[in-house]
Amino acid sequence: MANRFTIAHLGTAKIKSPLQLSTVRGDNIFTFVTDEDQLVHDLSLERYTECLAAGTEPQGLEKAGPRQHLFFEPQETTAAIVTCGGLCPGINNVIRGVVMALHYFYGVKRILGVPYGYEGLNPAMGHGFRELTPEAVKDIHQFGGTILGSSRGAQEVGTMVDTLVREKVDILFTIGGDGTLKGADAIGAEIERRGLSISVAGIPKTIDNDIDLIDKSFGFETSFDIASPILRDAHNEATGAFNGISIVKLMGRDSGFIAASAALAMPVVNFVLIPELQFKLDGEQGFLAVLQQRLEHKKHAVIVVAEGAGQHLIAQEDVRTDASGNVQHSDIGLFLKDKIKAYFKEKFPVTIKYIDPSYIVRSAAANPGDSVFCSGLAYMAVHGAMAGKTRFVVGRVNNKMVYLPISAVTQKRKKIDLESEFWFSVLQSTGQPFTL
Amino acid sequence: MANRFTIAHLGTAKIKSPLQLSTVRGDNIFTFVTDEDQLVHDLSLERYTECLAAGTEPQGLEKAGPRQHLFFEPQETTAAIVTCGGLCPGINNVIRGVVMALHYFYGVKRILGVPYGYEGLNPAMGHGFRELTPEAVKDIHQFGGTILGSSRGAQEVGTMVDTLVREKVDILFTIGGDGTLKGADAIGAEIERRGLSISVAGIPKTIDNDIDLIDKSFGFETSFDIASPILRDAHNEATGAFNGISIVKLMGRDSGFIAASAALAMPVVNFVLIPELQFKLDGEQGFLAVLQQRLEHKKHAVIVVAEGAGQHLIAQEDVRTDASGNVQHSDIGLFLKDKIKAYFKEKFPVTIKYIDPSYIVRSAAANPGDSVFCSGLAYMAVHGAMAGKTRFVVGRVNNKMVYLPISAVTQKRKKIDLESEFWFSVLQSTGQPFTL
Amino acid sequence: MANRFTIAHLGTAKIKSPLQLSTVRGDNIFTFVTDEDQLVHDLSLERYTECLAAGTEPQGLEKAGPRQHLFFEPQETTAAIVTCGGLCPGINNVIRGVVMALHYFYGVKRILGVPYGYEGLNPAMGHGFRELTPEAVKDIHQFGGTILGSSRGAQEVGTMVDTLVREKVDILFTIGGDGTLKGADAIGAEIERRGLSISVAGIPKTIDNDIDLIDKSFGFETSFDIASPILRDAHNEATGAFNGISIVKLMGRDSGFIAASAALAMPVVNFVLIPELQFKLDGEQGFLAVLQQRLEHKKHAVIVVAEGAGQHLIAQEDVRTDASGNVQHSDIGLFLKDKIKAYFKEKFPVTIKYIDPSYIVRSAAANPGDSVFCSGLAYMAVHGAMAGKTRFVVGRVNNKMVYLPISAVTQKRKKIDLESEFWFSVLQSTGQPFTL
Amino acid sequence: MANRFTIAHLGTAKIKSPLQLSTVRGDNIFTFVTDEDQLVHDLSLERYTECLAAGTEPQGLEKAGPRQHLFFEPQETTAAIVTCGGLCPGINNVIRGVVMALHYFYGVKRILGVPYGYEGLNPAMGHGFRELTPEAVKDIHQFGGTILGSSRGAQEVGTMVDTLVREKVDILFTIGGDGTLKGADAIGAEIERRGLSISVAGIPKTIDNDIDLIDKSFGFETSFDIASPILRDAHNEATGAFNGISIVKLMGRDSGFIAASAALAMPVVNFVLIPELQFKLDGEQGFLAVLQQRLEHKKHAVIVVAEGAGQHLIAQEDVRTDASGNVQHSDIGLFLKDKIKAYFKEKFPVTIKYIDPSYIVRSAAANPGDSVFCSGLAYMAVHGAMAGKTRFVVGRVNNKMVYLPISAVTQKRKKIDLESEFWFSVLQSTGQPFTL
Repeated sequence: MANRFTIAHLGTAKIKSPLQLSTVRGDNIFTFVTDEDQLVHDLSLERYTECLAAGTEPQGLEKAGPRQHLFFEPQETTAAIVTCGGLCPGINNVIRGVVMALHYFYGVKRILGVPYGYEGLNPAMGHGFRELTPEAVKDIHQFGGTILGSSRGAQEVGTMVDTLVREKVDILFTIGGDGTLKGADAIGAEIERRGLSISVAGIPKTIDNDIDLIDKSFGFETSFDIASPILRDAHNEATGAFNGISIVKLMGRDSGFIAASAALAMPVVNFVLIPELQFKLDGEQGFLAVLQQRLEHKKHAVIVVAEGAGQHLIAQEDVRTDASGNVQHSDIGLFLKDKIKAYFKEKFPVTIKYIDPSYIVRSAAANPGDSVFCSGLAYMAVHGAMAGKTRFVVGRVNNKMVYLPISAVTQKRKKIDLESEFWFSVLQSTGQPFTL
Repeated sequence: MANRFTIAHLGTAKIKSPLQLSTVRGDNIFTFVTDEDQLVHDLSLERYTECLAAGTEPQGLEKAGPRQHLFFEPQETTAAIVTCGGLCPGINNVIRGVVMALHYFYGVKRILGVPYGYEGLNPAMGHGFRELTPEAVKDIHQFGGTILGSSRGAQEVGTMVDTLVREKVDILFTIGGDGTLKGADAIGAEIERRGLSISVAGIPKTIDNDIDLIDKSFGFETSFDIASPILRDAHNEATGAFNGISIVKLMGRDSGFIAASAALAMPVVNFVLIPELQFKLDGEQGFLAVLQQRLEHKKHAVIVVAEGAGQHLIAQEDVRTDASGNVQHSDIGLFLKDKIKAYFKEKFPVTIKYIDPSYIVRSAAANPGDSVFCSGLAYMAVHGAMAGKTRFVVGRVNNKMVYLPISAVTQKRKKIDLESEFWFSVLQSTGQPFTL
Repeated sequence: MANRFTIAHLGTAKIKSPLQLSTVRGDNIFTFVTDEDQLVHDLSLERYTECLAAGTEPQGLEKAGPRQHLFFEPQETTAAIVTCGGLCPGINNVIRGVVMALHYFYGVKRILGVPYGYEGLNPAMGHGFRELTPEAVKDIHQFGGTILGSSRGAQEVGTMVDTLVREKVDILFTIGGDGTLKGADAIGAEIERRGLSISVAGIPKTIDNDIDLIDKSFGFETSFDIASPILRDAHNEATGAFNGISIVKLMGRDSGFIAASAALAMPVVNFVLIPELQFKLDGEQGFLAVLQQRLEHKKHAVIVVAEGAGQHLIAQEDVRTDASGNVQHSDIGLFLKDKIKAYFKEKFPVTIKYIDPSYIVRSAAANPGDSVFCSGLAYMAVHGAMAGKTRFVVGRVNNKMVYLPISAVTQKRKKIDLESEFWFSVLQSTGQPFTL
Repeated sequence: MANRFTIAHLGTAKIKSPLQLSTVRGDNIFTFVTDEDQLVHDLSLERYTECLAAGTEPQGLEKAGPRQHLFFEPQETTAAIVTCGGLCPGINNVIRGVVMALHYFYGVKRILGVPYGYEGLNPAMGHGFRELTPEAVKDIHQFGGTILGSSRGAQEVGTMVDTLVREKVDILFTIGGDGTLKGADAIGAEIERRGLSISVAGIPKTIDNDIDLIDKSFGFETSFDIASPILRDAHNEATGAFNGISIVKLMGRDSGFIAASAALAMPVVNFVLIPELQFKLDGEQGFLAVLQQRLEHKKHAVIVVAEGAGQHLIAQEDVRTDASGNVQHSDIGLFLKDKIKAYFKEKFPVTIKYIDPSYIVRSAAANPGDSVFCSGLAYMAVHGAMAGKTRFVVGRVNNKMVYLPISAVTQKRKKIDLESEFWFSVLQSTGQPFTL
């Protein structure tokens, strides 16, 4: 009994791929991938035994890669690329990779850049389109940001599909996070409703690394690469004063991956506070008391706090959402700073430094590891879209590139499992207790 | 039918671990790992069907992690750490991680640093030992190299075991490559022969990333992280002259992973020559003719060559081995430079720049990604050794930490599969033909 | 008629320097410097003509360097080092340089580190002293911050002198800014009043570069070196949104050197607002109107604002001073952000990103240029103090190392001359009008 | 009696500058500079007394800056830029600065890029010209190398002037070293001979920092900025082996500035060998014996050698010159490596690592300090050329921007004075004896 993630297709792929690849192993030439090339999702051998007992197949993931037959005639294909949401390292690398793959691998001649996110698909905004060529994108991987510009929030789906039709777009590559991908899926649904043959491909972009199912999203490694020396600096500030405390706020609205990874990468951190952790401030084992012990013992402390942490502590009087629909949090960093200040006022003098590097991380250029990852994702997205797949994302699972339905990865946010090896290593590295 | 990599044990682990972990899921506390926690090795779903048909179990890998019971009484345990072979980013991070884990997690009080590799286990060299404490190692992760010093080559196994016995060492952590690990296994065999209870744990260190079975070795990401801007520089040099050619030689004696990954990370490279590729220089589709076409078209070219590439082209008159037993190669970079110079002498003027960044890469500090990886490896090695496992390495397979017998990973070197997605993406990125 | 800055001396220097230097030119060995080696201060040839006419000597500066005779017997000398005020790149380099010079050049054996700034000279704080040796400081130049810790604000002068006497300190090296130097001068005055022979040497430390008379203070180049890529990032954020505006607040309480230099170094900045510039927000040529023109024309803008800029615009209801006596400013960055937001509310939508990298800059390690500079300053401070000079600072003027009385450099803060070549080049580079 | 460097002029500057500057001080607007704004060259106060006695004027330097009247009508001016010789950090910054200044300050509309150095002025090479606009150069400062390409060596002067005439070039900006500047002066002489009105302006480019009279050349700071961490790496390699020796060869054909500055910036270096130092290898106080003492004492050593050092030691059988006319040196690095190897063969085992980072330094992008410097030089070159000055260079002397005749700076190479404060600080920092 098959148990697979099914990727939607626009129709039968009948056009021979221009890629000169092989269909057999052993000739030193890469072999076309088929939809039947499936990978096991759960690595636990236990699961196998269960499946064996139940006579079922373990869950399969469709391997990404170039297909032997395409849905689109490359010479006549128009592709468009849109980048949405906040900045994240690697967006330009993905844009570059998509353009290079379309142009050089397949010979697609018309590639449009959609300016300023989904706004650019709404003609009322008056942004126009931008032609993308290899010459125009060849150096962009060395820069952070997005050459296309971005915006938060949605536009009316019908309007966006109208624009795609008017501009004769065959494939829309969307680079964005949870909200953007849901938007892309809605566009795909509307396309389907209208019986059109436009592929919608997603490349998940989330600096928070909170897209479900996939190992990690692009830009995430760079983000803690950039954050890591900032923690070293914060440590310099903390030790530079008697009872010095540095608080560094890092990204992570719903998931604390950046805070935790940066703390692992630069082991000068004493406390990592993340949204997944329901810590308390007061009481004998509360955060403030434990912090006091730390100071009494070591005379300094470094605290890393994810922006979405401790929301249970902040009075939720004014819940707001930003233009992307994300819940806007009160600033936990400043909140903590105030609480710590107040707590020690009656104990002993402390010096608190508050560091909020947000945009410095977001707007950095991709590091070499992410550069490799981004071009891989871009190439795979192009291969899938040219084969007529739609409403899909490309992602890495168990270190392998796969295609997944957009709907599969947007059902919930990925979060840090407090019982995972990962969080355990953070606790080991910081010396922070299991509960606060 | 079980089909697992079996890790050797010194005996039954009876001592209760001091780690305050859980034995059940759901309490937000990390759960002790057991030897029965096995992971699937081959991810292909096809393999599952085959196993199902054959009634066999797919190959299993033993999950790394803290065990509930230890073989060694932490308070009475002496550990020693030795680092061998060439420098590689992250060695100090691993040393730091091992010391921190032994000291803080388990309470091991006596940790010895063995100076200058296996030489340090030979009393005739007169190097002595060095006491390692958290205070002594707390900042070393910010520096490249190894604070212990290293050496190439082996020492007499009996002598080294004598030293371990004399110094009452219970666990020997060896950080080194293929030769070092084989040496560690030989030490383990001799210990077994003598009926001693000394654990030998390996943390594979190879900048070439050529240890078999594991996803990647520590320091590898940093190595192409460091190499990547050097390729950008090489591109500056190539475009800075009319018909400018830059040749960058990177590490990779038997496997071209660094050359290929660096080229992917900095997509300015036109040719990647690796040991796995039996390219020819002459002839219509030979490298020189293709290089000429490139120059005629673009007026510059960047070539990345792994140090072990093209050995089939160099007259093998003087095959030598270095002190570690590695075959010493003639310098392919200079060889290529000469061949290119000679070839174009009769065609048109070219300007060739030869860049050999070897030690600049080897002696760099670990980047943040490798820092996280290194402490993870160190922690896992400590967990395994404290539980009495021996003659094992810790490594990452399919993105998960596992234990493997040393003998399993030293049977052959890992090489780039020319039919792999990885090599295909290099060809896609460079535009280099499948065959040269 | 001499017209020189006169450096105070503790008394006649009679002890032969252990440095094996020369007293004549031409032997390829560095020649001892004498107090008569004076350098011209004002480079304008016009000034020369004036002096010629008036029969006066142009103002002279005493050249720094090793003197042939010392006031202190090195073997019996105790030196102490104190670091005060906010962090600044290079403090550890200066500490290292002072220790190395005292130990290796002169053979001074007792060098004390005073912890946490002037607090460390107040026994009531209970911080104790720390012995500094070459071994203890050899690697510290690779780290930002100060290994001694720092504090803001003064301690009672008599108490501090009592401590120096009790600890038999002969030379006190103070590393700090305007307030610290004034404090050092007060200590020197008290020492003089008591008829003691303790030298007080200052190495000016101000990330703002606002110490008068000298070319630049250490750490200043590093500070805009670190700030410069942050401006590039800010530009990425600005261009990443339609009508995107990035505001970067940089250090500079009274002087805008960092803001101006960083903007010159990374020419993506459109406005530099500094304390020296009395800009207005409103009106036809006010900042907001000019910003609007910029957006209408280019769709993005990058603003760099020094923390002390625009204070004339902020209602001065609550003037406060921090512990160092510096006037605490309301946050001009947030003030500007609010004003811009309000202004465009009725015009068109803008996206504003506010970036405050303060501590990230302050706590960075010195760059190579500053490393060279810091060891030079440290060596020169040691040479001067050993010769018995006191209440002096070492600084670079017209690219040459000189000694100056502390009182000469603390009379006023150095500011950007709005008619200088420097500010003119900022205006040229940004395209910002002369007046706003 | 005036004693000034005289800058050649094409004729009277009669055209009103479009720059809206002031002619008086005190209005907060930069004041036009006049040729009478002269700066003292020699800072020693002693020189003043001598001049006073002799009734002469000290040597004056012409202050660089915008003149009130121009020789060229900006709207009708054509400028060309040529970059010659080896790569050096900052070339693109200078190109960018010249283009921006010509376009935005003066309104010059036609700016030509000459490809591949002086070759580009020889039509026989067929390279053509390239139009330079602000849009084309706006991001190039973030890249090393030169977007124009370069070449070594001269072309026939008459041919080059013919090209300038044919292309109606009014101003030629030459960016290059000693040979290039001499070539530029020859072009200027030929222009004069023909009675043409073409200005030739030089911006000295030499990574070796060996241009006479000026404080430093652009790119020099970046070069030791890049070299400095490589020395740290070399130190890691040296300490990573028992009796490990690292030899790092740095640029410096005739002058050892980079080697010396890098060693100052990263104080892990034990020996700095430069062309200015006539060291001997053998004998009791020879380099090899001193190296042996170092190893016996410390077990490792780091040696930095400038490429032009020790040429007196290498048998000069085959003196060659490269295309630029520079004497080609045999490789002192490999020579030293061989000598050291041979020397210790009979003493004790050593491990030698040889590191040659040449192109990695040359092709780096300018650091922020050099970026500021490069745009300053570019702006000043434009101001001088627009005013009709010719056969001049712009440079920084005593920290101030001045104009100098090309002939004044090409009479001899700047070298390290072995009796200078600079070399003394190198000896102090390394502990190397005055003579070897």
